[in-house]
Amino acid sequence: MVEHRKPIPVAEAVERVIKKAQALGTQQVALGDSYGRILAEPLKASHDVPPFNRSPYDGFAIRSKDSMGASGENRKRFEVIDHIGAGAVSEKVVQEGQAVRIMTGAPLPAGTDAVVMFEQTIDSGSSITIRKPFEALENVSLQGEDMKRGAAIIDSGSFIHPGTVAVLATFGYAEVQVAKRPVVGILATGTELLDVSEPLQPGKIRNSNGPMIEAQLARMGISCKTYGMSVDDLDESFNVVKAAAEETDILITTGGVSVGDFDFLPAIYERLGAEILFNKVAMRPGSVTTVAVADGKYLFGLSGNPSACFTGFELFVRPAILKMMGAEKLYLPRTQAVLAEDFAKPNPFTRFIRASYDGLSVRPAGFNMSNAVSSIARGNALIVLPGGTRGYQEGALVDVLLLGVEEGTARWTL
Amino acid sequence: MVEHRKPIPVAEAVERVIKKAQALGTQQVALGDSYGRILAEPLKASHDVPPFNRSPYDGFAIRSKDSMGASGENRKRFEVIDHIGAGAVSEKVVQEGQAVRIMTGAPLPAGTDAVVMFEQTIDSGSSITIRKPFEALENVSLQGEDMKRGAAIIDSGSFIHPGTVAVLATFGYAEVQVAKRPVVGILATGTELLDVSEPLQPGKIRNSNGPMIEAQLARMGISCKTYGMSVDDLDESFNVVKAAAEETDILITTGGVSVGDFDFLPAIYERLGAEILFNKVAMRPGSVTTVAVADGKYLFGLSGNPSACFTGFELFVRPAILKMMGAEKLYLPRTQAVLAEDFAKPNPFTRFIRASYDGLSVRPAGFNMSNAVSSIARGNALIVLPGGTRGYQEGALVDVLLLGVEEGTARWTL
Repeated sequence: MVEHRKPIPVAEAVERVIKKAQALGTQQVALGDSYGRILAEPLKASHDVPPFNRSPYDGFAIRSKDSMGASGENRKRFEVIDHIGAGAVSEKVVQEGQAVRIMTGAPLPAGTDAVVMFEQTIDSGSSITIRKPFEALENVSLQGEDMKRGAAIIDSGSFIHPGTVAVLATFGYAEVQVAKRPVVGILATGTELLDVSEPLQPGKIRNSNGPMIEAQLARMGISCKTYGMSVDDLDESFNVVKAAAEETDILITTGGVSVGDFDFLPAIYERLGAEILFNKVAMRPGSVTTVAVADGKYLFGLSGNPSACFTGFELFVRPAILKMMGAEKLYLPRTQAVLAEDFAKPNPFTRFIRASYDGLSVRPAGFNMSNAVSSIARGNALIVLPGGTRGYQEGALVDVLLLGVEEGTARWTL
Repeated sequence: MVEHRKPIPVAEAVERVIKKAQALGTQQVALGDSYGRILAEPLKASHDVPPFNRSPYDGFAIRSKDSMGASGENRKRFEVIDHIGAGAVSEKVVQEGQAVRIMTGAPLPAGTDAVVMFEQTIDSGSSITIRKPFEALENVSLQGEDMKRGAAIIDSGSFIHPGTVAVLATFGYAEVQVAKRPVVGILATGTELLDVSEPLQPGKIRNSNGPMIEAQLARMGISCKTYGMSVDDLDESFNVVKAAAEETDILITTGGVSVGDFDFLPAIYERLGAEILFNKVAMRPGSVTTVAVADGKYLFGLSGNPSACFTGFELFVRPAILKMMGAEKLYLPRTQAVLAEDFAKPNPFTRFIRASYDGLSVRPAGFNMSNAVSSIARGNALIVLPGGTRGYQEGALVDVLLLGVEEGTARWTL
């Protein structure tokens, strides 16, 4: 009656999923739409940075050799022959004993090779005096000192964050080549499921996994198609899954992957001729998570319980999507933190626990049974406890996966 | 000639900004559009969770008292009178010696108070036998055990993450009350600035701060108006700033806040009758960052250099926006990490250094001068070194502000 499935380690499950990723191709988007996309071309410097020798201060550009011998007793005088702000180019060629008043960011005028800061001068308007000699190139930002033309700056496969956008803008990328996004479908299975707008009925609960996954996708900047809810009837379910899989690159189902009498996904995968990558993972919650591939498309069979569903998405779906987009960094950022309270349960399998991480310590987000809605409502991290371990004590250093730091902290502590 | 400004500590600057926040009001959005918004109503449980006593396993529901005395030598037999999956309600009332085949998530049938898992039975189809007694409520998820109806779950002011969406769905929030988003304008000042699509010209550079801030806002889910570039002429600049401020809740300018000859923002703020919250902060880069308030609207005068501009946004603009939206958690998440290389410079002011954080250690993102484009391209964190300190050695524990973990890690390490 009970089908026997052999659990595989989480790392192996992740590996099997990643290997099946097929590239989605690329598209061009306007720079203003590029935030959050995966860069699909290497970004190179199209010019030196700075593009010319420029002044890093407000002051006066001079010929350094004219400052030789200056001292408090022997101040050197310079005639101010021009005045330029950033963006302006002086048309003068500076001669002996001359200076140009210059603002931060402006290019050094012809003939000059040093900048005297305002506070290093006595300024009479038409002329200045200085009391110390300046070296050639003193107080000058040299052309190319930050970056040489042609230098590789950002690799293809990088996430485009605000800093990346700044660099793209600097080098004139009005359009950016980025990875296409996958078409993702969500299908929540189970006759017990009501839509969010329906009143509660005996024996039923509202579908929370569908909207949750939609939000998990939204966090990655990816929209999705939802296929409503399939009834627990094999033929009808098969047709819905088949049609949905044809329209999508990735079809995520929730529920129906266990060994219950109405868990039709295993039979559906078989009928689709899908290759099952695994149907049992040595993890809690979510050991029944099943991933299959049919016609080059992913079929993610996530557990119907919310915590398991959530974790299954972050562990398996997220890196698969990133891999399809050619991203370099596929996995949730990991850190370590001090456990803020005892976690007494033994861990026959690797255990993932919803938790609140404050930057130093981490606390399980309350009641963490598979069905617990309350723990899902809190937490910004997953504690990972290795399989084969007994309970952990407060104060232990544990592994933590960060789930996104969209939410910050409530107190300024620096 | 050089105006003297008194620097204030970063924490005080942040405090002054926050205090001026005016609430933006609320609006209702569909659940599917709620990810990333700030919740503007407390979320309460509209029913118990679970809403009924339910089976956490696939198995058989029985009356526990009928199992008394069961043993390997004295197996108890139960007649299977019904079969229900999740979402179905049995119409039977279970009598002595009867059982109902029940799937995970289904409500316990009338009369039953315990669940026997499949693997604890010998199943002949029409009947089962068991070899041990079960206690009342054994293997039953009790109504309300996760959450009681009316319980407060999530406070107003919380960020709506995917877990929050799951809870909203569970409790039937098809529409959610969220904070309105501010209307934000960006105005990059400076005659040296070219648009991203323009070819490079002598003495000029492309505007990278505008697109960068646009992306920093996009990371917060906020769109903006851009006011192109103002010329370095006081009257014209004043008119542009005045018009932009009238159309926005927050106007962010970049450049023009220093004491250079063409730095018009101080004069513009004065002409607007704005209250200057500060015009000098004891920080590097970005000490000239100026924040003012006019007619209840924020005027953020960020430095024109990219690193300072970036940091100024994250330190001052971000919490101001969050505060206007009633958010509870205003500040960048903070952690501590081991410095991966020496940082030799002394720090007269608090220093913010773009850095790459890998969960355990943190490395300055290369050349970190104010104008350095290359350091902006890398890094997912800011190292914070307190003012008044000398250089730091590799291995020192330093404070780190996390800038968003959209990008993960390249290796699976668990």
